[in-house]
Order: sequence, then C-alpha cells, then structure tokens
Amino acid sequence: MKPIGVFDSGVGGLTVVKELMRQVPNEDIIYFGDTARVPYGIKSKDTVIRFSIEDALFLLNQGVKLICVACNTVSSVALPVIKSHFKVPIVGVIVPGAKEAVYATRNKKVGVIGTRGTIRSRAYENEIRKLDPKVKVTALACPLFVPFVEEGYLKGKVVKEVASGYLAPLKKAGVDTLILGCTHYPLLKSVIKEVMGQHITLIDSAQQVAMEVKKILELEGMTSTKRRGKCKFYVSDNPEWFQGLARSFLGRHLDNVQRARNV
Amino acid sequence: MKPIGVFDSGVGGLTVVKELMRQVPNEDIIYFGDTARVPYGIKSKDTVIRFSIEDALFLLNQGVKLICVACNTVSSVALPVIKSHFKVPIVGVIVPGAKEAVYATRNKKVGVIGTRGTIRSRAYENEIRKLDPKVKVTALACPLFVPFVEEGYLKGKVVKEVASGYLAPLKKAGVDTLILGCTHYPLLKSVIKEVMGQHITLIDSAQQVAMEVKKILELEGMTSTKRRGKCKFYVSDNPEWFQGLARSFLGRHLDNVQRARNV
Repeated sequence: MKPIGVFDSGVGGLTVVKELMRQVPNEDIIYFGDTARVPYGIKSKDTVIRFSIEDALFLLNQGVKLICVACNTVSSVALPVIKSHFKVPIVGVIVPGAKEAVYATRNKKVGVIGTRGTIRSRAYENEIRKLDPKVKVTALACPLFVPFVEEGYLKGKVVKEVASGYLAPLKKAGVDTLILGCTHYPLLKSVIKEVMGQHITLIDSAQQVAMEVKKILELEGMTSTKRRGKCKFYVSDNPEWFQGLARSFLGRHLDNVQRARNV
Repeated sequence: MKPIGVFDSGVGGLTVVKELMRQVPNEDIIYFGDTARVPYGIKSKDTVIRFSIEDALFLLNQGVKLICVACNTVSSVALPVIKSHFKVPIVGVIVPGAKEAVYATRNKKVGVIGTRGTIRSRAYENEIRKLDPKVKVTALACPLFVPFVEEGYLKGKVVKEVASGYLAPLKKAGVDTLILGCTHYPLLKSVIKEVMGQHITLIDSAQQVAMEVKKILELEGMTSTKRRGKCKFYVSDNPEWFQGLARSFLGRHLDNVQRARNV
C-alpha cells in the first residue's frame, strides 16, 4: 500500500505527523519540509503557491496516495490550486479546524491566530461563515510566535508579554474558542491559556487534520493493512536544523532525515 | 558607466545601500533581495552558497561592475566560492568590519553578534586573528534580533529582556568593541547600548563596507562620472513586504521595486 504524503514549509508539520502516527499508526508516511525556503508565512500568495506545487510534486514522485498539507499558510492560500492540479486526495488544515471551532463554541465567538499569510487570506473566516454565518470571527497574526518556538522560547516573561499584546483584541472580543492556526502554536498552548484564561477552548489543527485523513482513507478504501507504518523524512536544506527542532515538535529524535536535492 | 550590484537575503542589505548612497552618491546601484527564500541565517552553508551564486548571477546579468555582498551570513560562508567563480570585484562585509574593530578596540576584547550561520562560520574570529592575534573575540548568535527588527520591535522591555540575555556573556567578557555582524542589528543600536553600556564602540558593517567599495572603485578606476546615481531594486517575492520594511532600513519609501522572476 502506498504511503501518505505530508508537507510543510519546515518543521511545524511534524505536529501533524505526530497525530497521524497516533490516529493512523498502520500507515507509511513520507514527510517533506522545505527547510531551504522556510518560512512561508511572510511570503506572498503566488510565491507560496509556486513553492507548494513543487512540494506536492516531490511527494507525488515518491508515490503517495494522499497529500496532507500540514501547513496553515499553504492550506490558506494554495489549497484550491493544488487541488485543481493533482488527482490524489488533498487534505488541508483549515476545514477540519474551522469545523471543530464551530462545533466547540458556545457563545458563537471564535478567535483565529496564524501567520500573516494565513490571516491575510481570511481562509478561516470564509470557512466558518459557510458552516455557521452567526459565528463572529476575530483573526489576528502573531508573527513572533514562530521564531519564539523555533528558538525554544516556549514560556517565560518575554513570550507572555508578546502574547498578551497579540491576544488582547481576542480577549476584548470575548472569544470562547481559539483556533491555533499555525502548526507551531500548539507548543505555546500553556502561555496562550495563561493569557486567554483557562476556560478557553484551543483548537489544534493537527488533531483535526489527522481525523480528516483517517476518514478519507476509510471512505476511499485506501487504508493500509500493515501492522505498523514507517516514516521517512525529507528536507530541502541539510537535516541538522530540522533534526534539532524535531524533538520539540514530534517528541522524539529523528535519525532518518534525508536531504531532497533540487526541490 | 556600469552600476554597482548589491545583494542580500532580504531587506537588511538596504542599510548598506543607504551608506553607499551617502559615500558614493554618483554611482548607479542595482539591489537584489532574495525575499522568496529569506532568511539565510538559519540555513546550511551549502544552501547559502547555492542561493548566493544565483543572486550574484542575477546581478551579473544586469551588467554590474562590482558586487557588494550586503549580508553577513553570505559573506561569512559563501564569499570564497563567489570570489572564485566571478571576475568582477566582490566586496563582503566581514573584512571591513573586522579591520575597524581591531582598529577601535583599546582593551583587545572584541565581541561579535550575528545569525547562527555567521557565528558558526567563525569568519570574524578568523579575520581578526589574521589582523591581530592578540585580540580576544567573543562571538554569539542572536537569532531573535532579525524577527524583532522585521516586526518593528526596536525598543521596549521585550527586546531589552532578550538582548540582556543574549549579550550577558559579552558583558562578562568585558569587550569594549562590538561588531554588529548582521545588517539588521544597527536598527537595535539603542537597545544594545542600553544593555552593554554607553561606552561600548559599535561597529556597523554598513559604513565600513561602503568605504571599502569606494576604495576599490577608485583603485580600479571604475568610479562613475555621473552627477547623481540611480537605484533599482529587485526582489524574488512580491515587493509589498520589502517595501513595507524599506522605510526602517533605508529611511525612505521605495516605489521602484520590481519582482525578479525565476531567481
């Protein structure tokens, strides 16, 4: 049985891989992180689309049966183009996250945080409006959160100070549910809860997207019958940086990371 | 007369353009910022070399007479390769900065701050050792400084807190001179002085490299006889992000920024 393909601009998509390993442990996974061109979140729509098509093609060349776009920025701005180009099922992170948020909110006030690219696209707002037009969405970019996570600033007064500034409009808006619209943000959950209050419901795209992948595999009859799946990891830069961060995102050390040339 | 070429991973090289405009105002300048693949500072040596060669080729295709590498990361890890490939004079930022630091220090204790790539290369240490082996160099990466500058965090308690942590070993080492080994860092001068003490001598690569360019143009008889030079700016992503930051780096708005495709 063919593997599942997962791609991200860098290392963040490993939070999705972690959930896939938990929810569909019998599937083989091929991950691609575009670490030579990371990050995507500050870049324009057409550049993100161009890079994403190359990333998806790399996975298709590895023979994947489904592509999971484990990056909110790509899912926000490039998913329609990728879906229109390629035959395999493509799963993004926006729809599953939006569904879960609409399901979870009690007061119909939902917050979204993400990269500039994700927020600018209004992808979450549009999706939530389709599901329930009564839900009021407040969306904000938190551009320092990715560097903080990648530099290991997961708690402490610096992160709390910046988070308080970023999240103030969401507190003011009274959201009871907050979509963590970037694969890095689950690592800042405790600080975000500290700032927003412990009552807040945090929607972690990784869990939702893995459920979506599982559902599609079952619907399409593509489920692996293996006892235990294997994972292969490819990156476009040298593996060191990726491997150094993998432990935070995946919870374990990664040996088997290969350089994918000319991506 | 042909233009000078200047390239950088993104927007930081504009601090060098600003100095060139001041010191060689009669020269035409063509700037290239690789904003689609920015940043370079976290990436591996061979990826930075590969990107830099493409950046230099773009400028050569525009007919430049000299290339100024306005990026400490590229100057640190890729300059020997670029110099060996291309015929035009290539000016990096390391040698001019190292010279000035060795000249400026009274107690022979020099600090260097830069990206991970710059610090890992030990380029400043090696250059300073050649100039004066008695100078003791303490070099440190400050990875959050670039995101801070690009997000407009130029002062305030968050930056001060992070800067205090980063710079503590330099204070302990008793350096009297500090090389700002990244084109973004001059924008954090006031915070760095606050932390290091007002006595510290800050070496700003931009000023030194512009002096070096001027010297080479004169030595090689390549000085422009124009009354006033013109600048053209090219980027590999859409111009918006670059234009948004240009004011901080260059001190004025930029209209004439073009997208260079396929770089």
